[in-house]
Amino acid sequence: MSPRAKALGSDEITGRLSEVPQWSVLDNRLHREIRFGDFSEAFAFMTRVALEAEKLDHHPDWSNSWNLVVIDITSHDAGGITGTCFSLASAIDGFVDR
Amino acid sequence: MSPRAKALGSDEITGRLSEVPQWSVLDNRLHREIRFGDFSEAFAFMTRVALEAEKLDHHPDWSNSWNLVVIDITSHDAGGITGTCFSLASAIDGFVDR
Amino acid sequence: MSPRAKALGSDEITGRLSEVPQWSVLDNRLHREIRFGDFSEAFAFMTRVALEAEKLDHHPDWSNSWNLVVIDITSHDAGGITGTCFSLASAIDGFVDR
Amino acid sequence: MSPRAKALGSDEITGRLSEVPQWSVLDNRLHREIRFGDFSEAFAFMTRVALEAEKLDHHPDWSNSWNLVVIDITSHDAGGITGTCFSLASAIDGFVDR
Repeated sequence: MSPRAKALGSDEITGRLSEVPQWSVLDNRLHREIRFGDFSEAFAFMTRVALEAEKLDHHPDWSNSWNLVVIDITSHDAGGITGTCFSLASAIDGFVDR
Repeated sequence: MSPRAKALGSDEITGRLSEVPQWSVLDNRLHREIRFGDFSEAFAFMTRVALEAEKLDHHPDWSNSWNLVVIDITSHDAGGITGTCFSLASAIDGFVDR
Repeated sequence: MSPRAKALGSDEITGRLSEVPQWSVLDNRLHREIRFGDFSEAFAFMTRVALEAEKLDHHPDWSNSWNLVVIDITSHDAGGITGTCFSLASAIDGFVDR
Repeated sequence: MSPRAKALGSDEITGRLSEVPQWSVLDNRLHREIRFGDFSEAFAFMTRVALEAEKLDHHPDWSNSWNLVVIDITSHDAGGITGTCFSLASAIDGFVDR
């Protein structure tokens, strides 16, 4: 386990949520739901997330139903939210909020 | 709503499940869970499912967590499982069980 | 071969090019080159094109080099540019020019 | 430019080609052509290559025409074939030849 895989404390998580205001904390995970125009747009977004997740070696727990994508990010290794979780959340925001 | 979008009765569903023995009925949906070697393999599979779903204009409710893909298929329009649900399930089997 | 698979004459092609002004005719194909911000953006675009191509059952000849995607569309069956080629080109424009 | 981005000499390239016997050297690039069962299978393969390329930060020059994928790998930075080119080629082989 790399040093970055340490779960953050709740104060630190609260502080860093301001960096990714579209995300909330749900069941000890970073959570965001995004609705797109249609399935094609949703799945193209998922492809970008997949590329980023593979690069970071940190993969979301996510679901899709047509134009809706629901994303939860946590570190199963660290047992909570880590700095890398915030990195992935921030990258995801870059794909959708520009 | 096209004619094919009519929900099947439970006898018909039970009968057709023999065509797709890897699937069960869960909450009025066709359900299957598939575990792959890693995320890359799982997401490549999801891409094939996406292509098929778009072609059939019938999209699954599905989730992914690293190498695990969980798929539920129903027709929201018809309010149940239709013939197209079985077509999608059968096509998915072709991607994974060969 | 479906009726729509008939190659268009040069007058008709010239006329319909005004519908897709980003495309030119090169070697009897509809041709467009598109540069994106990076590979991730380019490949997400390609995923949308793949979904559309599979739905239309009409696939481009295309290449990618990091952020560059080069697309050629023709009908190998019809031996030239068909109405479906223009449909695919127009759908592609919808993914990139909005 | 990272140290690994140094172009290999022709003796070293020849030696390492034995690790990836499906590849040849064409115009100072590693070259392989792969034909799949259909477009869906080809594009799912491309998605795996995309994930690997993004992880390695080393992207192929490639083209697709329905079930055919043609891949060329070189380092534009190094002006030739590098060790990372062989890493990508080897990973690609793992997606298709198992």
